[in-house]
Amino acid sequence: MEINAANISAWLQQLQANICAALEKADGGAVFGEEKWTREEGGGGITKIIREGQVIEKGGVLYSAVEGVAPDFLFKENSHSAMDKGTEKPQFFATGVSIVIHPKNPMVPIIHMNVRYFETSDGARWLGGGIDLTPHYIFEEDAKFFHQSLKKVCDAHHAAYYEKFKNWADDYFYIPHRKETRGIGGIFFDRLKDGEEMGFEKNFLFWQAVGEAFAPIYCELIARNKNKMYTEQNKQWQLLRRGRYVEFNLVYDKGTKFGLETNGRVESILMSLPKTAGWEYDFKPEKNSAEEKTLALLKKGLQWAE
Amino acid sequence: MEINAANISAWLQQLQANICAALEKADGGAVFGEEKWTREEGGGGITKIIREGQVIEKGGVLYSAVEGVAPDFLFKENSHSAMDKGTEKPQFFATGVSIVIHPKNPMVPIIHMNVRYFETSDGARWLGGGIDLTPHYIFEEDAKFFHQSLKKVCDAHHAAYYEKFKNWADDYFYIPHRKETRGIGGIFFDRLKDGEEMGFEKNFLFWQAVGEAFAPIYCELIARNKNKMYTEQNKQWQLLRRGRYVEFNLVYDKGTKFGLETNGRVESILMSLPKTAGWEYDFKPEKNSAEEKTLALLKKGLQWAE
Repeated sequence: MEINAANISAWLQQLQANICAALEKADGGAVFGEEKWTREEGGGGITKIIREGQVIEKGGVLYSAVEGVAPDFLFKENSHSAMDKGTEKPQFFATGVSIVIHPKNPMVPIIHMNVRYFETSDGARWLGGGIDLTPHYIFEEDAKFFHQSLKKVCDAHHAAYYEKFKNWADDYFYIPHRKETRGIGGIFFDRLKDGEEMGFEKNFLFWQAVGEAFAPIYCELIARNKNKMYTEQNKQWQLLRRGRYVEFNLVYDKGTKFGLETNGRVESILMSLPKTAGWEYDFKPEKNSAEEKTLALLKKGLQWAE
Repeated sequence: MEINAANISAWLQQLQANICAALEKADGGAVFGEEKWTREEGGGGITKIIREGQVIEKGGVLYSAVEGVAPDFLFKENSHSAMDKGTEKPQFFATGVSIVIHPKNPMVPIIHMNVRYFETSDGARWLGGGIDLTPHYIFEEDAKFFHQSLKKVCDAHHAAYYEKFKNWADDYFYIPHRKETRGIGGIFFDRLKDGEEMGFEKNFLFWQAVGEAFAPIYCELIARNKNKMYTEQNKQWQLLRRGRYVEFNLVYDKGTKFGLETNGRVESILMSLPKTAGWEYDFKPEKNSAEEKTLALLKKGLQWAE
C-alpha cells in the first residue's frame, strides 16, 4: 500500500476490527460496544469497549484520526518543522489504535498496546507505538514467551530494535515514587521517521507488524491462564496492582496527561483505568509469597528474551 | 502561647491526639495505629492510620515536622526571602496535620483537613490550611451545616475570610477534565502571614480554630449518617465517586504532586487514597436519581451558608 494518511487510517480501522474479533473469540462471552465520536477541531474516532466478559472485565480498543493546527508539543523534539523557522504553524494529522485490557482473573495479565502515526503539513511524519504487559502475578514462562515474541517481531526488521525499544519501555513504564516498573515492560518507541535507523518505509512495515502481533500474543496469554483457580487473597492483590496501574497512568503517562490537559475526550483517555482498584496503607507481602516474588521482578533491566 | 516552631509543633501533636480520640469515639470500633518516621534530611512525623472500623473504612491523621535547605518552590510566591536577593539559600521548617477519612457507608461523606505552618531562617513565616467535604450523596441540610460551621469559624476572626477562602476551595478542589468539583468544597487558604489581612498573631488564632473545628464538625456528620441504610447500587456509586477523588489527588493536588516529586514518604502522601475505587466507561446516572442530583451540585459558586 502507498503510505499516506488515508491508507494508514483505513489500515488502523481494519486492525481495530481484527483485534476486537480476536478478543471476543478469546473471551467467549462479551462483545464490544461501539461509539463513534467527532472532534470539534477536526477528525474523530471509534471507541470500542468490552465489559463483564468471561475473561475480560473491562477493556477498550480505540481508533482515532484527528487533525488541526499543530500543538507546540509536537515539535519540542522535532527539528524538521516550520515551528523552528518562525513561520506559520503547520496543520497536523494523527491517527492510532490504543488498547488496554483488564482481565477478571488475577492470573491473566493486564495488557496495553498502542500504534500511532503523525504527520504535519510541512512534510514531517513519524511513527510510535509499543506493547507492554502488566501481570498481577509474574509467571516466568509467560514473561519469556511475551518478550521472545516481541523480540521476534523486532528482529525481523532491525537487529538493534528489540534491545533499544525494550530498554525504552523499561524506562517509560516506571513508577519513580514506588521504585517499581508498572509491569514486565515490553517494547516502546516514538518518533521513528525517515532517515533514522532505516528508511520510513521499512519502519512502517515494522510498525504494522507490532500492531498485528498484539492479538496472537495476548490471546495465547489468555488461553494459558484463564482457567487458573484464584482466591480472595489473589483478588485483593489484583486490586493493589491495579492501584499502581492507576498511579502510573494518572501521574506519569504522557498520553494521559496530554489528553487531559488539551481537553481530549475524557472517557476515551480514561478507558485505561480498571473497573476497580485499591490501596492499603504500607502493604507488605508475606515472605516468600507469590506476591513478594512478583514484586521482586518489577525492576528495570531484567532479560526475559534469549 | 508564644508563636514559635517548638510550640506550634507541640500544639499540632496535641491536635492530632485529640482528633484521633474523637474519631475513635465516633467510630466505636477501630483504633488508630501509630508509626513514627524520621526524614534523612531532617525532621520526621507520626502517621496515625485507622482501618476497617464500624464507620471509617480507611483514614489517616498525619503529623509531620520537617526541616532542611529550603526548596525553590517555597519562594515562588514569596518575595520576603533571601532567594530573591541572590544570597545563600535559607533553612526551612514546616509542620502540619493532614487528615483524610474514607467512610464505609456511602451516606457518610469523605472529609479532608489540613493545617500547616512554614518558616524560614531568614524570617519569613506563613500559615495554610482548610477543610473540605466530599459527600458521595449530597444532603442539603448537611452541606448547609458544614458550610455554616466553617463560616462561623471564619466570621469570628475576619469578616471577609469565609467568602474568600470558600471561593479558594471551589477553585482548588476542581477537576477540570470532569468539569466537576471534587465535593462541596469548604475553605482553603495558603500563605497567610504578617501584614496581610490582619497581623500574624490574629491569623494564628484563626488557623488554630480551623484545626479545632474539624472533629466536632465531622463527628456530627458521622452521627447524622452512619446508620442510614444503603444498597449495592449506592456502594457502586461510592466506588465511582472515590475514583474521582483519586483522579483529583493524583492529577491535580499540589501537596501530592510535590510530595511524589521530592521523594517524600509515599505511604504517608498516598494515605489519602481510598481502600477501593472504581471506573466505568461513560457512566451516566439515571434521570432524577439521587446520583444525578448529587452530580448537579458538584459545581463552583454554590452558596450553602447564610
